[in-house]
Amino acid sequence: MRNLGFPRLALLLFLSSFPLMNSQLVPAQDASSLALMPMPAHVSQGEGQFVIDGSFGIAFQGYTEPRLDRAEERFLDRLSSETGIPLWREAQYNQAKFTVRAAGPSDAVQQLDEDESYHLEVTTSHVELTAPNPLGVLHGLQTFLQLVHITPQGFAAPVVTIDDKPRFPWRGLMIDSGRHFMPIPVIKRNLDGMEAVKMDVFHWHLSEDQGFRAESKVYPLLQEKGSDGLFYTQQQIRDVIEYARDRGIRVVAEFDMPCHTTSWFVGYPDLASAKGPFQIERNWGVFSPAMDPTRESTYAFIDRFIGEMAELFPDRYFHIGGDECNGKEWDANPRIQAYMREHGLKNNAALQAYFTGRVEKLVEGHHKIMEGWDEVLQPNTPKDVVIQSWRGPTALAAAARQGNRALLSNGYYIDLNQPASEHYLVDPLGGDAASLTPEQAKRILGGEATMWSEFVTPENIDSRIWPRTAAIAERLWSPADVRDVASMYARLGVVSQRLQYLGLKHESVTPLMLERMSGEENLKALSVLASVVQPPEGYEREELKDYNAWSPLNHMVDAVSPESETARKFSDLAKLIAAGKASPDQLQQARTSLTLWRDNDAKLQPTLGRSDLTEELKPVSANLSQVAAIGLEALDNLENHSAMSSDAKQKNLAILKNAEKPQAVLRLMVVQPIELLVQSTAKQ
Amino acid sequence: MRNLGFPRLALLLFLSSFPLMNSQLVPAQDASSLALMPMPAHVSQGEGQFVIDGSFGIAFQGYTEPRLDRAEERFLDRLSSETGIPLWREAQYNQAKFTVRAAGPSDAVQQLDEDESYHLEVTTSHVELTAPNPLGVLHGLQTFLQLVHITPQGFAAPVVTIDDKPRFPWRGLMIDSGRHFMPIPVIKRNLDGMEAVKMDVFHWHLSEDQGFRAESKVYPLLQEKGSDGLFYTQQQIRDVIEYARDRGIRVVAEFDMPCHTTSWFVGYPDLASAKGPFQIERNWGVFSPAMDPTRESTYAFIDRFIGEMAELFPDRYFHIGGDECNGKEWDANPRIQAYMREHGLKNNAALQAYFTGRVEKLVEGHHKIMEGWDEVLQPNTPKDVVIQSWRGPTALAAAARQGNRALLSNGYYIDLNQPASEHYLVDPLGGDAASLTPEQAKRILGGEATMWSEFVTPENIDSRIWPRTAAIAERLWSPADVRDVASMYARLGVVSQRLQYLGLKHESVTPLMLERMSGEENLKALSVLASVVQPPEGYEREELKDYNAWSPLNHMVDAVSPESETARKFSDLAKLIAAGKASPDQLQQARTSLTLWRDNDAKLQPTLGRSDLTEELKPVSANLSQVAAIGLEALDNLENHSAMSSDAKQKNLAILKNAEKPQAVLRLMVVQPIELLVQSTAKQ
Repeated sequence: MRNLGFPRLALLLFLSSFPLMNSQLVPAQDASSLALMPMPAHVSQGEGQFVIDGSFGIAFQGYTEPRLDRAEERFLDRLSSETGIPLWREAQYNQAKFTVRAAGPSDAVQQLDEDESYHLEVTTSHVELTAPNPLGVLHGLQTFLQLVHITPQGFAAPVVTIDDKPRFPWRGLMIDSGRHFMPIPVIKRNLDGMEAVKMDVFHWHLSEDQGFRAESKVYPLLQEKGSDGLFYTQQQIRDVIEYARDRGIRVVAEFDMPCHTTSWFVGYPDLASAKGPFQIERNWGVFSPAMDPTRESTYAFIDRFIGEMAELFPDRYFHIGGDECNGKEWDANPRIQAYMREHGLKNNAALQAYFTGRVEKLVEGHHKIMEGWDEVLQPNTPKDVVIQSWRGPTALAAAARQGNRALLSNGYYIDLNQPASEHYLVDPLGGDAASLTPEQAKRILGGEATMWSEFVTPENIDSRIWPRTAAIAERLWSPADVRDVASMYARLGVVSQRLQYLGLKHESVTPLMLERMSGEENLKALSVLASVVQPPEGYEREELKDYNAWSPLNHMVDAVSPESETARKFSDLAKLIAAGKASPDQLQQARTSLTLWRDNDAKLQPTLGRSDLTEELKPVSANLSQVAAIGLEALDNLENHSAMSSDAKQKNLAILKNAEKPQAVLRLMVVQPIELLVQSTAKQ
Repeated sequence: MRNLGFPRLALLLFLSSFPLMNSQLVPAQDASSLALMPMPAHVSQGEGQFVIDGSFGIAFQGYTEPRLDRAEERFLDRLSSETGIPLWREAQYNQAKFTVRAAGPSDAVQQLDEDESYHLEVTTSHVELTAPNPLGVLHGLQTFLQLVHITPQGFAAPVVTIDDKPRFPWRGLMIDSGRHFMPIPVIKRNLDGMEAVKMDVFHWHLSEDQGFRAESKVYPLLQEKGSDGLFYTQQQIRDVIEYARDRGIRVVAEFDMPCHTTSWFVGYPDLASAKGPFQIERNWGVFSPAMDPTRESTYAFIDRFIGEMAELFPDRYFHIGGDECNGKEWDANPRIQAYMREHGLKNNAALQAYFTGRVEKLVEGHHKIMEGWDEVLQPNTPKDVVIQSWRGPTALAAAARQGNRALLSNGYYIDLNQPASEHYLVDPLGGDAASLTPEQAKRILGGEATMWSEFVTPENIDSRIWPRTAAIAERLWSPADVRDVASMYARLGVVSQRLQYLGLKHESVTPLMLERMSGEENLKALSVLASVVQPPEGYEREELKDYNAWSPLNHMVDAVSPESETARKFSDLAKLIAAGKASPDQLQQARTSLTLWRDNDAKLQPTLGRSDLTEELKPVSANLSQVAAIGLEALDNLENHSAMSSDAKQKNLAILKNAEKPQAVLRLMVVQPIELLVQSTAKQ
């Protein structure tokens, strides 16, 4: 679901309940010497290291199954990618220096409450991984892969003993395939990414006003009329489910109802509360089409449909959405109004509750447990229904108090371009949930990062998901007290680099898009600009410009990372300088950056007019130059302990204030730290 | 085949027959305004451009077939990738501004002599592509994709009329899956690359001493014992063939015999001329194992095997290799010696000719035309046998004079790390072949780039194939007089960028490998070094260090491009400076580069010892710094019209001579241009 109303305020209120983020500067090298993410529950590091060379071998002992064979093969492939050392299964003359032992099988269909623990022991001569079942083995293999790094002796893992298990059992990533269709390779590489950071639920948002994306054989017009030909066949879906299971990931399908259903109605207008015909929605937002909750034929349809999907998706949980009904079609339909009066349904919320209650029984009839967004929670909601909270910790806690299990997505909306640190500090047991009784707290299952897809395409979606989702994965796996932001960022850089070996394009997409955008061979100056801008946060993007399903997402805002590493580091530097704690090296570093930015516009400006897509960057580039010059002036003052005239200061602050405003749907992220520098100069 | 004897000399002799390469500096922008590669036979450019926006539509009229449907879908995908504009087939409300018309079908199995021509007309309002058959359509669509570029009005193709057809019908790329196995995705993305530059033959080298890579159901021990589990199933092969056909590419399988066959003998030792048992070969080179040409059982085996493969691979041509027999096993086997005496086979060449003659009949019996390397050509070789020449133009011409058709690979050995310009200027009708009669010249079918795989892995193979193979593709497609090197390089840069949209990793692999190698976050200094080094040319690499199938290919030499663009451009600059023709801007450019290189070592050196893989770069980095300092000294002299003392000059030249020697299996490519600068300073 997507709140288009008062989300930013809600978000800010929510975030303000957390302490200020830790901005200590920890040397990257220390923190990343054990660049594990999520950080295991217990790590104890010893002396020395286990060196990986061509003689490396692995042996799976004890319980085995085809999934573990494939895990072995994937592990060797991956280790080979991470090192460049050829390792393959059938060509091992080698001693098995790495032994793996699973005690027994996992459940045939992965369950929410399965044991995911493992024990990993690395010595200088061998490695041992043991786990109660294959899930733990999968997690332990990923931990080992993260331990490997280059040393003067070659690739090696440090001597270490790890006992690990997750804090929460539900650690999810939702991908919205409805608004922008995401082809199978996109889904698969993101499942690989999820495995790498030990996430275990892929929530597949498969229907939206803008598209119905799963093949139904019972109701084929769903995809035939509702998808522009962009849908997953049942065979592809089965393949994804198997792919996910191989990686210890459950696949929870969501078919959003009774609203967000325009695409269903193109082929089946009788389901709707208004008269058709309907067309696939091409705009973004909340729309009026809604199923008709008052006709038995609606439930007959849903019953058969859920029956088909319940068979296709083996997971115990089935997500029926249930969010964001504006009720307009219900209000406008006299027959529905009459039905409501007749049945004592006082308002639209009551009508939806009636609908949800009926659907819940259908879901149960197909041996599934229903899941839904906040809205499905009603006083009489059966206790086994799982609530996914987009509204926030208060709603989350309310569900748990009422006896329902719940998971948090508010705060994990990765489409909103917040920094990793903000997501990282959101805790499913924080805010209102902190006051739950232990029994109630147990009902908080975990959380899910949600990748809504208005503003992503298959090309750049990875860059919105990664690496920030790894920080959320750590929140959901690691002990609650693992919350040092500086350590998180130091490790996140390493994790991000490693994720590239899985084919994820979060880092490689930027230069490719810059090249396309500019048509220039030399991208240096454009890259400098790209490195300090970010997309707007929250829902500001749609306020700045009109977008719909046809809008090309090929501008600078689509090419850059949601979080500028350059700006983040410069901001840390500015804080040190402002506090008078910067070393001469750090001062020089700041000066070098500011000089680069000040001088960049002269190089970049002449090329920007050559492309329709870079033309809009002219004022952004000019702004960067101007604010950097102000930054240098402030730095001079600070270094010389001289003062900036109060006129100059005022003028500069006004310029900075102005440069903070989005231009070309971009935020210039170095303005605030420069403001800080100016503010901290002495007054004349 | 791989000549490990006297290839460099032969190569040099061959290349010396060409005029000096054109080193004129053409402004990249002019040349790349029509960045087509291969350059069409006839292009006439008009005024204005055809703008591509969301209203773009395409309509296929006239003859159609499922392959053209898929071509349409692929074209829209690709155009969407190149522009970032959403375009898909079923969602077109749009007018078809691009109409495509094929007159009729192609052959069911693509033939060597099919018409590949097309006519493409771009006006400001519409585009028309017509062709006799789908092959021409496929080519024309690729040409259009190359025409598209960003402009101040958005993405657009210039107004242009193109009449195009290839000069040679056989434009191949060979990939050696024997020495290093290349997974299916590697093959597929390279087929995409081939389509983009209009190559039409994928020559799949499927068996080697080091591995047998195709599944045989008749003789399953071939892959079971001979592949380390790394082979293609028949289903995968069929899939690749279909994938290739969709792209207008024939798939010619090669099963090399009677030598390069160790891997066959692991499962079937009775085929060999020596007593087994055999093991998969782990070293590189020419080895002794050879089939026994004197036993009928050998031919019975080959007959059944070819029968099976002839059915699997529908192409008319079947490659039996036939190269590099050292004859040692034949010499050592008394039974074979007796047979040779008995049958009047004077020497091993005669024995092999006898073998080849027998095999040729078997190939013919399965309705295929035999192809083989130079060695298979004997006085009595049937005239339809096609000769692939690795030996050079003399051997190629000899084949044509004898009445056989032939194609050139000598000069197109892309594993040898020669610059694109050298491959580009090799002409199948150059050298000895220039004196062929028109009738004989017609027998020269074209050529093939050969990607032998001793020194490539699935990770870096793209960087050895692309973009240089595009220059070879142009040689084989475009008119003979299209041979301006500067224009080629200007267009090659654009083509290289575009090839990335196909998932080819030739550009993205370098930073990834540098990161892995160093483990450092900041790769600037390492990248500066990487940008000016190249792998050794020809067969020098194996002389510098021992390698075998287990050697990790994860060093700097494996990470960098075979042709340093930075060094090539600096070399052009140095020539201008030496000739006194450099502008002040160009002099400044040279100074900036030299300064960067001189100062790089101080930044890089402290980090190199932290990794086993960068340790070896210490002297390379030091050399770069030292030679750059000499370059700056020379530049000072040249700019001030001052002299370098003859002592200093001598000393500098000695240092430079020394720095030319490979270090860490790397050549420092800026040494020679700096030498030129020093040489051109005035003497004192």
